[in-house]
Amino acid sequence: MTRDLRICFVGDSLVAGVGDPGGLGWAGRLAARAFADGLPSTHYNLGVRRETSADIVGRWEDECARRLRHGTDLRVVLCFGVNDATHEGDRPRVAPERSAANLAAMLERAAARGWRALVVSPPPVADLAHSARTALLDEDFARVCRTAGVPYVSVHRALSENAVWIREVALGDGAHPGAEGYEEYAALLDPHWRAWLATSG
Amino acid sequence: MTRDLRICFVGDSLVAGVGDPGGLGWAGRLAARAFADGLPSTHYNLGVRRETSADIVGRWEDECARRLRHGTDLRVVLCFGVNDATHEGDRPRVAPERSAANLAAMLERAAARGWRALVVSPPPVADLAHSARTALLDEDFARVCRTAGVPYVSVHRALSENAVWIREVALGDGAHPGAEGYEEYAALLDPHWRAWLATSG
Repeated sequence: MTRDLRICFVGDSLVAGVGDPGGLGWAGRLAARAFADGLPSTHYNLGVRRETSADIVGRWEDECARRLRHGTDLRVVLCFGVNDATHEGDRPRVAPERSAANLAAMLERAAARGWRALVVSPPPVADLAHSARTALLDEDFARVCRTAGVPYVSVHRALSENAVWIREVALGDGAHPGAEGYEEYAALLDPHWRAWLATSG
Repeated sequence: MTRDLRICFVGDSLVAGVGDPGGLGWAGRLAARAFADGLPSTHYNLGVRRETSADIVGRWEDECARRLRHGTDLRVVLCFGVNDATHEGDRPRVAPERSAANLAAMLERAAARGWRALVVSPPPVADLAHSARTALLDEDFARVCRTAGVPYVSVHRALSENAVWIREVALGDGAHPGAEGYEEYAALLDPHWRAWLATSG
């Protein structure tokens, strides 16, 4: 039987690819790379602007369940945290321990559903204090994934040292890059993405 | 104030762009064209494989509402019907009068929500009898849209005479084209898309 691969990319505006003139973002780029390598998939982008992990945890499972009804290899890629770490007043929109708990809850549900998961670290933005908080979340998320036995791709630090990423985010709205920044993000993810796709259920 | 345009593309696999190696489909192509013309938008692709209008009517409003919370110009593009016209046994999965009623209900909800709508006709597939049923739906949908005062872009017939579309759908799985077919679809929609984007709320 042919492998019928279906993947939902779940997260915020950075998953949705906001700012990318071509509209692909890193998620679309990864799917296109896999297709070019002879691995077509049905992929659904479920990134929503402004959403924190608290927003996402409330809607992701229903949305994915509708899209992962058929197919022989059902997967989810999760990426969020930048909005969690945004300060409103002098506190983050979601407390770090809550962000980690939301991720853990999602991984538990993915496992229960039989959806193979990959988690991608939230990227840095132009505001250094904000990015420092996101970097701590990145560590928390890595720990949650280790416990859950789910691969975690930590590219936060690499992006914070990536000149293209930094320039495009700064020239943009301070949070989103353009096409080249998303291409850099995708290139960093690509080897991990390929390794994950090569694993079977 | 800057125009903050947010658009949900709602429908089935042909909205999702299944079969397009680049993953854009006609929806991604239209968004990219608008961006290139100086009109960036946040666009969400809510096409789901195999779904009929009866499936879509049950989930589209919640999914769009989560994505159209912010922004100054909120819109939806609707396109479905090919799966409604699919025969199971000797009957369509959704009866034509039900398909039309589902569209009418969605347009009523879009108006109530303040979402400006555009409806796109379902395309032909390789099976001529199936496409003949879809062509009748195309006429029904045009009528529903006239009544609702919503623009309807009827490209079903043009696609059924489009050599690129016909060839790619036949070479593919019988329902979905590749990149060039989606490009043809987008090119036919483009003038209507631009005219619709130019209208203001």
